[in-house]
Amino acid sequence: MLMRVLDEALKLVEPTKEEREKVDKIAELAFNLVKDASKEFKEIKEIVFGGSYAKDTWISNDVDIDIFAKVDVNTDNERFEYIGRNLGLLALKDYKPYLKYAQHPYVEAIIEGIKINVVPCYDVKQGEWKSAADRSIYHTQFINDNFDEEKRREVRLLKRFMKTINVYGAEISVNGFSGYVCEVLILKYNTFINTLNNAKDFKEKTVISIYNYDKSLLDLFDTPIIIIDPIDNKRNLGAAISSNSLARFILASRKFIDNPSIKFFKQLSINPNRDLRKQVLVIKFSYRDRSDDIVWGEAKRSLRAITKQLQLHDFKVIRSACHVDIDNTVILFAILLEELIISKYYIREGPKIFAKDNSNKFLAANKDAEMIWLDDDRLKALKIREYNNTEEFLKMLLKEKLEQSGIAKGLIDDIRKGFVIYRDNFEERLINEIVDHITGTDELYL
Amino acid sequence: MLMRVLDEALKLVEPTKEEREKVDKIAELAFNLVKDASKEFKEIKEIVFGGSYAKDTWISNDVDIDIFAKVDVNTDNERFEYIGRNLGLLALKDYKPYLKYAQHPYVEAIIEGIKINVVPCYDVKQGEWKSAADRSIYHTQFINDNFDEEKRREVRLLKRFMKTINVYGAEISVNGFSGYVCEVLILKYNTFINTLNNAKDFKEKTVISIYNYDKSLLDLFDTPIIIIDPIDNKRNLGAAISSNSLARFILASRKFIDNPSIKFFKQLSINPNRDLRKQVLVIKFSYRDRSDDIVWGEAKRSLRAITKQLQLHDFKVIRSACHVDIDNTVILFAILLEELIISKYYIREGPKIFAKDNSNKFLAANKDAEMIWLDDDRLKALKIREYNNTEEFLKMLLKEKLEQSGIAKGLIDDIRKGFVIYRDNFEERLINEIVDHITGTDELYL
Repeated sequence: MLMRVLDEALKLVEPTKEEREKVDKIAELAFNLVKDASKEFKEIKEIVFGGSYAKDTWISNDVDIDIFAKVDVNTDNERFEYIGRNLGLLALKDYKPYLKYAQHPYVEAIIEGIKINVVPCYDVKQGEWKSAADRSIYHTQFINDNFDEEKRREVRLLKRFMKTINVYGAEISVNGFSGYVCEVLILKYNTFINTLNNAKDFKEKTVISIYNYDKSLLDLFDTPIIIIDPIDNKRNLGAAISSNSLARFILASRKFIDNPSIKFFKQLSINPNRDLRKQVLVIKFSYRDRSDDIVWGEAKRSLRAITKQLQLHDFKVIRSACHVDIDNTVILFAILLEELIISKYYIREGPKIFAKDNSNKFLAANKDAEMIWLDDDRLKALKIREYNNTEEFLKMLLKEKLEQSGIAKGLIDDIRKGFVIYRDNFEERLINEIVDHITGTDELYL
Repeated sequence: MLMRVLDEALKLVEPTKEEREKVDKIAELAFNLVKDASKEFKEIKEIVFGGSYAKDTWISNDVDIDIFAKVDVNTDNERFEYIGRNLGLLALKDYKPYLKYAQHPYVEAIIEGIKINVVPCYDVKQGEWKSAADRSIYHTQFINDNFDEEKRREVRLLKRFMKTINVYGAEISVNGFSGYVCEVLILKYNTFINTLNNAKDFKEKTVISIYNYDKSLLDLFDTPIIIIDPIDNKRNLGAAISSNSLARFILASRKFIDNPSIKFFKQLSINPNRDLRKQVLVIKFSYRDRSDDIVWGEAKRSLRAITKQLQLHDFKVIRSACHVDIDNTVILFAILLEELIISKYYIREGPKIFAKDNSNKFLAANKDAEMIWLDDDRLKALKIREYNNTEEFLKMLLKEKLEQSGIAKGLIDDIRKGFVIYRDNFEERLINEIVDHITGTDELYL
């Protein structure tokens, strides 16, 4: 059964000869364009392929071509960024190139449906990193030195599995497993199935390392899983992985081992509970276009702040989720609550009657209460909540208390320009999707 | 101001010459009847007055006449109870006498509006108590040996104050301060106002004793206030006083000292909040006539059990109260809730995903849940409550779970015969009163 599933999965993930030929052709075209353009920038020492294309670990129908420009280490940051912006724009000018932002700006374009990334990095020695992209060159080298065809196959299976369960990618929107992490896992555990067999028993703070490592470094790494970068043992590749992504991977590993199915390489269904929709609110607003990672980070932080404010006011949040829609520069916060309207009243606990001064203060301060009484020897007052309607509370929070709400500074102006709260009316496609998500049980759990 | 209030209060509590004459006449009549009848019981050694009449500490318009029959110490319990029943029935046969039950049965009758109690006790030496009534003789003696007219006046003020704030009486229905406790307090603090001046600063576990006492005995007394009986230092008169009664007395003492008012000797108003009535349920049922103290004890215990069951099922009880109506042999439980209908859903917290066996068990056990998801690395399931309607829950509890509910055994048969739950419809006088009580703020707190 397992073998049959893996055979079928391999057919899905392995590029065909025809696909390879097409991708190679486009890669060569883009590479030459970048190489030509690079002559305009004297600081550029070399143009190289990077990422999964360079490592030949890309998945069928799912490839980006990363082209790295190695820039002289003595180039200052301003010039480095100038090259990052202009090399790609110049090289791919015939393909509607556009700017993207990570730690530094870079350029993206699409040629015949395939995404090309033109990324600057410093031409540094191993360990002397200057920009976040500098390690990539060494990762590529390391994997190519250690991978054979078999490992490439196993990595393709693992990556596709990670994608299906929504934990693939180190970007903040996913907080999951990067392609490189998948490759390191296969180096560690040799096969896809052995990786899952290990993952299903992961404990909290499992440490994964290919080489021996300095145990004193572990104290630096306070993450749910620790994965030591084989080319830099001071770097924890697990830092990008959220506990939720790790948990999903562990659970999925158990499910797949117990019951192998091709679904784990295609799509897992989600089963939304229509009854729960009555208790969902969705906040929608537009944001100024900025780096995806920055906006995602702000959105996640802001949702946590909103959830916290709701809880502080006794609204019971069951689940919440955010979505940053890059195409429409729109952010969605979806919140599932135990009830949209909570009790009008709350009990304020006072002191025991023996504490005379505090008792007098409590009585004086609660003259306007709905009721004051002694519960045994403790004073209590029944008060009316300022807010017992979740929607009204959110409107107030996002209007009057925006600055104090804990919402990320970067989004405050965006929200001030306007937001809409949806209730009951979730037809819009993006809204429908996020509502299904927070009211749904993933096939993974069944 | 204080003096004027106390002068006015004294006029309310001091019996007039005319009243004394009437009461003395009836007391003498009853005494002679009991004395004559006692000749039929060779074990009876002496007939004596007891209680507030004997101590001359009774309040105007509010007197019971207690007549004690001192029975030979060698009389067995059966014969003792026989005397308790028959002496009074025989003596007061022309006044519709009826049986009452405390530790032992005794007889009550009403002559010209004044209640006569004919109570048996053993003729014991001090300290060699055989029945609960035996100490009374010595209490009477002790107070008469130590009280003068001034102290009698002060005690009358204190008793009336205690009555007005509903903390007078050691019986279980009140769990308050007995007449004898009031007398001991006046012996300790000399005057009414000095008693209140001390009470306003009572700390938890204040110890009150007229004489020196054996401090090692205090460990036996785990009550909110400890009052050593001057005729028996092994006895804590505070055992009958609930923390609520103590707290009300302390609070009232502060209020009166700060703002003396004749209201504290007449009546304090209660200010019910009509809005809260929507969240009240009242349970009513009849009980088989038994000793008041026993039924009150069962009612209070049962209400605690019902409240506990409600809380265990996430219904939020704000306040509750019971009332035993002696005249109609009816018990009422009134419960004020934060909401009568709570959320349909509740979250069941599961294990962290790392705990493999527990995770698998949790997933298997919650296949029927409304939703299962990973909150960070912890499994959670959303379930439907079996009961989210307080009224329906109570009906179920009092029908299907009566034996397991914690309700006092003595009331289970009564409830099984039938009960009514009232909601919104509280016109019936008794029901209206208890609803006003649990939705009301006492003048004491304002």
